[in-house]
Amino acid sequence: MPYVSTRGQRLPSSPIRKLVPFAEAAKARGTKVYHLNIGQPDIPTPPSALQAVRDADISVLAYSHSAGNESYRRKLAEYYATFGVEIDHHNVLVTAGASEAIQFTIMSCLDPEDEIIVPEPFYANYNGFALAGNVNVVPVTAVIEDGFALPPIPDFEDLITPRTRAILICNPSNPTGYLYTRHELEQLRDLCLKHNLFLMVDEVYREFVYGQEHTSVLALEGLEMNAIVFDSISKRYSACGARIGCVVTRNQQVYDTIMKFAQARLSPPTLAQILAEATLDVGPEYLEEAIAEYANRRELLVARLRAMDGVVCPEPGGAFYLFARFPVDDTENFCRWLLESFEHEGATLMMAPGEGFYSTAGLGRQAARLAYVLNEADINAAMDVLQAALLAYPGRTPTRVPQEMKSELAPEAFELGD
Amino acid sequence: MPYVSTRGQRLPSSPIRKLVPFAEAAKARGTKVYHLNIGQPDIPTPPSALQAVRDADISVLAYSHSAGNESYRRKLAEYYATFGVEIDHHNVLVTAGASEAIQFTIMSCLDPEDEIIVPEPFYANYNGFALAGNVNVVPVTAVIEDGFALPPIPDFEDLITPRTRAILICNPSNPTGYLYTRHELEQLRDLCLKHNLFLMVDEVYREFVYGQEHTSVLALEGLEMNAIVFDSISKRYSACGARIGCVVTRNQQVYDTIMKFAQARLSPPTLAQILAEATLDVGPEYLEEAIAEYANRRELLVARLRAMDGVVCPEPGGAFYLFARFPVDDTENFCRWLLESFEHEGATLMMAPGEGFYSTAGLGRQAARLAYVLNEADINAAMDVLQAALLAYPGRTPTRVPQEMKSELAPEAFELGD
Repeated sequence: MPYVSTRGQRLPSSPIRKLVPFAEAAKARGTKVYHLNIGQPDIPTPPSALQAVRDADISVLAYSHSAGNESYRRKLAEYYATFGVEIDHHNVLVTAGASEAIQFTIMSCLDPEDEIIVPEPFYANYNGFALAGNVNVVPVTAVIEDGFALPPIPDFEDLITPRTRAILICNPSNPTGYLYTRHELEQLRDLCLKHNLFLMVDEVYREFVYGQEHTSVLALEGLEMNAIVFDSISKRYSACGARIGCVVTRNQQVYDTIMKFAQARLSPPTLAQILAEATLDVGPEYLEEAIAEYANRRELLVARLRAMDGVVCPEPGGAFYLFARFPVDDTENFCRWLLESFEHEGATLMMAPGEGFYSTAGLGRQAARLAYVLNEADINAAMDVLQAALLAYPGRTPTRVPQEMKSELAPEAFELGD
Repeated sequence: MPYVSTRGQRLPSSPIRKLVPFAEAAKARGTKVYHLNIGQPDIPTPPSALQAVRDADISVLAYSHSAGNESYRRKLAEYYATFGVEIDHHNVLVTAGASEAIQFTIMSCLDPEDEIIVPEPFYANYNGFALAGNVNVVPVTAVIEDGFALPPIPDFEDLITPRTRAILICNPSNPTGYLYTRHELEQLRDLCLKHNLFLMVDEVYREFVYGQEHTSVLALEGLEMNAIVFDSISKRYSACGARIGCVVTRNQQVYDTIMKFAQARLSPPTLAQILAEATLDVGPEYLEEAIAEYANRRELLVARLRAMDGVVCPEPGGAFYLFARFPVDDTENFCRWLLESFEHEGATLMMAPGEGFYSTAGLGRQAARLAYVLNEADINAAMDVLQAALLAYPGRTPTRVPQEMKSELAPEAFELGD
């Protein structure tokens, strides 16, 4: 029997989906499972965008341009201008989600055994894109005590080798929700210019920021040849199933190379491009409402977690995730135990264990990512479960909670609000 | 400025799309251009499948299962049973076109510098998928005098090295239209079993056969662990823009590995999966009519080409392409000249030059691929242009036409039919 590739064997299974069988078993037993494990928003997709697909007059569902429909790319360029990024449609290439954008960019910018530095914890699927191209992810560790801020620049410099070709960040971050400041981005710019590296930024959560302002890497002067942005409508317009993203770069050589990989796969999905183009006509109130909703959920979730004894929870600046440390031996065990052996008032919850978001072995064993894609009542109910579970879990282990992340509220403060 | 990757630089631009600027200039001059260069069918997409998308009740356009919707995979398994292939939905993984299926399979089965033997001329985009994974395509040459039948097995054996991991064919073939016989597939089976190789078969044109029967590699006994099929609704249901294909294999280790890459990109497009599932409820008359239409076009195109002095044109057994040799110095020059410097009754035509379908340097310079995705009147008009062009082209060069491919008809026999 012929064997699979080494790269295929090295690719870990999705850490988020590994627990799925246990969740299914819990549901089969009649236990309600609150899903805080996945980034599938519950906000409705804009009805006008769905309607645009219904209204499309299609006789032959043909290939689009390999770079995506020109009309859509022109409107995307206008969208970028609204936050001060001057590009034109020749800088935009439409892809099947940000996933394909990242994949093509890695193939186009890195050769096998080249290295890409990524602050950890990071979006676990970056591993898959790197392994597909036999590129090595080199982690630089961000720490919970700093709220997962950018690691010090000397930590990056220590890792740079002749094979280093790029730095990749997610801003705001999945899984931590950390929003990088303009100053941090400028530090990265200087580093990339000094070492002739690409700065690749996954900006799919750009719009989801709470109070602070988001800076796009495309807005940094002097970085025009180095900056590459990955984008997507998946989260912004709750259209994960569309599979429409894009890559944006002013580096013509990079664009032309990505275009060759794009031509090999022919075109991005045609129906979904119609929907995506229509999202750009959706009024600002749609996103304003969504952001206000996520802001409320974030506030609630942080307050609930901080009120639990031993939980370390930085306040995320953006996206709809937070990455917390729990007073348990191992969050993979704890999450499995939650699904297999625990329930509170007929319910349990599912979180994404932290270890899968780290590349350095052994890190993240007390951490988990929580996505606040549930309404406030469900978040409250899920936190009631978690609070009870932490008291009941046999593998409870102390953690040190930094003073600034300690709550003034007792857990009981929330019991009435349910 | 940071540079692009070596693999990106090595990837050739699409040979088919290279002539596009010249076609655009011709159109701007007011010249009608008959497109025989691309495989975009003109047959309408089944209206019921398009209607299924309009009728879908969607509030949140969510991710699907990474392997595709189970309901769709179950129906695909039923479809495979109609031609004697017994699989179940766990053997099917839905992808963004056959393109993604091929890409994931190469990543899953081959490591960098591994080799895959492919009969040439072959679908040029295989180069892109191979280079993305830093895999080497090793060509084995099929010859026009044999109608592009399978090269002799000793030719394959001469190319097998310790790095050889797979043989890839397209059946029926894009670009030649050649339909492999069961006997040829059995020869390949024996070879793959002997050398422990995967046999990957792109069967997207499976339904388009004219007289002979198609044999799926999945129907060959003894090859269960080695056979991998790539499939797509693009051509079958004239739904190229849907971007829905699949990979089918009974090898669990291969399936599980492909699944990890599939999870990294999250899911195939949701809207298009609704359309794809609905195609499986389209009655048999849809494909019967399409096949009858292509059969007529094929007959006409072959007859017209064979009636032109010096043109060598095997009769294709399937798909909707043929690969002919022309009495010209270089088909890239000729195709460009057609677009830049020639017209006949206000029209010209575009073909895909042959060289891009070969991996061996220098081959295919007198060849071109023609797709019969135009109606018969347009094919006749395009052939009138070609016939006149071959008489006028300054780079005309003799070719030897095998006796069995010579026409009994004079070119003039067709002039009345327009």
